[in-house]
Amino acid sequence: MISAGKLAEILKAELVGDDSLELTAVSKIEEATSDEISFIANSAYFKHLPESEAGAVILDHIPDGEEGKRTYLITPEPYRAFLATLHHFHPTLDHSTPGIHKSADVAPDVQIAEGVTIGPMCVVESGVIIGKHSILRAQCFVGRGTTVGEDCLFHSRVSVRESCIIGNRVIIQDGAVVGSDGFGFAPGEEGYTKIPQVGNVILEDDVEIGANTTIDRATLGKTIIRQGVKLDNLIQIAHNVEIGKNTVFAAQVGIAGSSKVGANSMFGGQVGMAGHIRLSDGIMVAAQSGIHKDPGAKSIIGGTPAVEIHEWQRSFAAIRKLPDALKRLRKLEDKGD
Amino acid sequence: MISAGKLAEILKAELVGDDSLELTAVSKIEEATSDEISFIANSAYFKHLPESEAGAVILDHIPDGEEGKRTYLITPEPYRAFLATLHHFHPTLDHSTPGIHKSADVAPDVQIAEGVTIGPMCVVESGVIIGKHSILRAQCFVGRGTTVGEDCLFHSRVSVRESCIIGNRVIIQDGAVVGSDGFGFAPGEEGYTKIPQVGNVILEDDVEIGANTTIDRATLGKTIIRQGVKLDNLIQIAHNVEIGKNTVFAAQVGIAGSSKVGANSMFGGQVGMAGHIRLSDGIMVAAQSGIHKDPGAKSIIGGTPAVEIHEWQRSFAAIRKLPDALKRLRKLEDKGD
Amino acid sequence: MISAGKLAEILKAELVGDDSLELTAVSKIEEATSDEISFIANSAYFKHLPESEAGAVILDHIPDGEEGKRTYLITPEPYRAFLATLHHFHPTLDHSTPGIHKSADVAPDVQIAEGVTIGPMCVVESGVIIGKHSILRAQCFVGRGTTVGEDCLFHSRVSVRESCIIGNRVIIQDGAVVGSDGFGFAPGEEGYTKIPQVGNVILEDDVEIGANTTIDRATLGKTIIRQGVKLDNLIQIAHNVEIGKNTVFAAQVGIAGSSKVGANSMFGGQVGMAGHIRLSDGIMVAAQSGIHKDPGAKSIIGGTPAVEIHEWQRSFAAIRKLPDALKRLRKLEDKGD
Repeated sequence: MISAGKLAEILKAELVGDDSLELTAVSKIEEATSDEISFIANSAYFKHLPESEAGAVILDHIPDGEEGKRTYLITPEPYRAFLATLHHFHPTLDHSTPGIHKSADVAPDVQIAEGVTIGPMCVVESGVIIGKHSILRAQCFVGRGTTVGEDCLFHSRVSVRESCIIGNRVIIQDGAVVGSDGFGFAPGEEGYTKIPQVGNVILEDDVEIGANTTIDRATLGKTIIRQGVKLDNLIQIAHNVEIGKNTVFAAQVGIAGSSKVGANSMFGGQVGMAGHIRLSDGIMVAAQSGIHKDPGAKSIIGGTPAVEIHEWQRSFAAIRKLPDALKRLRKLEDKGD
Repeated sequence: MISAGKLAEILKAELVGDDSLELTAVSKIEEATSDEISFIANSAYFKHLPESEAGAVILDHIPDGEEGKRTYLITPEPYRAFLATLHHFHPTLDHSTPGIHKSADVAPDVQIAEGVTIGPMCVVESGVIIGKHSILRAQCFVGRGTTVGEDCLFHSRVSVRESCIIGNRVIIQDGAVVGSDGFGFAPGEEGYTKIPQVGNVILEDDVEIGANTTIDRATLGKTIIRQGVKLDNLIQIAHNVEIGKNTVFAAQVGIAGSSKVGANSMFGGQVGMAGHIRLSDGIMVAAQSGIHKDPGAKSIIGGTPAVEIHEWQRSFAAIRKLPDALKRLRKLEDKGD
Repeated sequence: MISAGKLAEILKAELVGDDSLELTAVSKIEEATSDEISFIANSAYFKHLPESEAGAVILDHIPDGEEGKRTYLITPEPYRAFLATLHHFHPTLDHSTPGIHKSADVAPDVQIAEGVTIGPMCVVESGVIIGKHSILRAQCFVGRGTTVGEDCLFHSRVSVRESCIIGNRVIIQDGAVVGSDGFGFAPGEEGYTKIPQVGNVILEDDVEIGANTTIDRATLGKTIIRQGVKLDNLIQIAHNVEIGKNTVFAAQVGIAGSSKVGANSMFGGQVGMAGHIRLSDGIMVAAQSGIHKDPGAKSIIGGTPAVEIHEWQRSFAAIRKLPDALKRLRKLEDKGD
């Protein structure tokens, strides 16, 4: 609970209305009640204001006719103020109490820094190092010799296999797997022989990995996810891949072995990328596309095989006209006979 | 074990043959042996009857030449009778004995109704409520403050995160994740800042969730899976999505954030759907399609971007003729010169 | 550690250089240091040789100008020699000590052969049989009545449900699910009724299953993965599917119910296949394709719906010319008026 006046002070927002109003939660503009605060950061949402029962609203101006109907916190950056408000109401999203749960199985030589939480049914193998204030929720697995940095948060049932290196402030959602064997087999006369996968995975600082996403260890060397990369759920990263700094992938993307994605790129959902390709930086890829070569820095591409996005859109518009065009072509041919 | 006569009585089927035949199992028509019962619900399977060794067969009529070869249970609805037979032979598919396994970690304030089973290595956090006769098999996780209804069945290694609401008779297959953080980041000068995901997930009554499927919690508000929805394996449901009543998705479908799918819809495998779209009810979508807008109620659509299914089929047929058409066009042009 | 001379002897390679050089690890040619050994199996990598700091290199000949710069192990099959070297440096990739971890929950009637390892937090239900030298790492689940063969390796958090049959030398990566319920529902007036899934899954000898891959049990009968099949991560195999001997699937492939894939086939990533199809042997499928019918033995196919690969490539090349062709068609029509 916080009063509207106190919150306005924290947000450095102008308060118009009742500064003593006690706010109990942050809520969507359509759902907020009289003791809740909401926000409008996108002008499309102003239409919800007349019917909203929100006690207070963060916005950049009060639209005509809405004056005096509720309390307003006015700021030039309502979205930023909303984020700060969220952080105020949910100061920490994990209530863990530091310490090793009695049911966890932690090898005697594991090095655990201060303030670390290891939850129930976790398994931490020999030689692991875990940095300050990191949290492993329930049923996580950390394999032999892996290093976990500071302020990391692993949700339930995360597996990080042996010999991996996890940076600081890394968040891994439930069920994700880091360091599974790369998919490498040598064909022989009597079927395939497994190629031992003896490399590892490195997740640099500020990486977030989605639920049930899988990141394979390198055959030799390393699979690297660079600083600030955000991967959504059910993504596949194959062995020896490198993903550049601050790149973001939507769900169900798949990157084949030994490929390299540049920095500051954005891939839509279900994109696939062939192996052994090196992409430039700043590329945007439409959902469900298939990437077979580097389109150059800052390209926007779509389709399978992916081409420049406007070319792809023109091709698809043309395909819709194709059945009719084939008839017209036949007609011209008949005329010419 | 049940005699053919007794089973015919339960199924209200007409028995032709040996009513004292003791049946030990239900099996496929191609694999059934002389003490097993099989069924034919689809006329395409009558071809297997002459070679079948099944002791008894459920069907809607005895084809010429098959009389007297085995025992028959005749009913106008053989498939329904088959389902009833399956339920007879497998009255419950889980042999759990109610109670909390000694290895489970259950917070002291968890409210557990009668007949609940909590299996080995489960972790149930503070504030959880679990309704009558629900079963958590091994290694499940239920986060703080989540409510689970009656007669639910969670298979091995299911995670349901904090503050979620699970209805009655919900089945969740192994490894599925409900309530992982939505994929929300605010871009800034030094990379992305995580937007706290403080909403939840609601699974209404009679929902079934497939193995390793992931359903993200809402940023604010709720992600909702309506009554009777069935989701197959490895599906991604993003934050703030709503899936309408009795809708069915095949495996590996992905729905982006804040989209709404209508009731009574069917999506084939690997379909992708963009964010912030609201679909009408009763839509059928071909496998691997990409949905970018609402095609209207009861539409049947295919392709990426998805269009009416016959238009899609015509386009693909036309594409196969395109290389030849381009040659013919060139020829006409040459002629015109 | 092994000396270059001793290793050359094991590999039956010709040694040119210092046979007393002590080697400490295998590394990539670009990353190897003076006490490490690397290899060149693909002529494209010879370009890295001049700058490489590797103490020793396995190759099939010494290129001009590189003589005397380091120690060489010369063999006509450098890749095979590299694999043998890897196996020498990593004789076993798992350091498990046989035995049942004190935290595991193993039913009293489980039959465990000699040399078996059952790791921490594993749950093994009643009636399970586990063959010699098989290893279950942490947090695995094996359901009632399942049989696991000899020399198997289950990584962390593997679930194999009830009544399944796992052959010898089967490797399952972290988080994979074998034997989850098939996706079967009978439509009715008030929504869908679940069809009990009472079949099982059979994984034959030498199968490898990727991380978070899901293989559903059969409705009746069995889902079969034949000898030597290798499945990458996040793959979906539906109920009653059969995958033929030595077939290989890249990540995120999905096979719908009751379909059969032949032997010695290779599917690229994100391929989808409709239900109730039987494919011939030796088929290769380009990534992201959609298979709707059997193209015949040894076909190479691509696209959705998948067609012969050159036809698909011609179609895509033609589509890129289509917008221009439509203009040319219009021009011809105008001329004809």
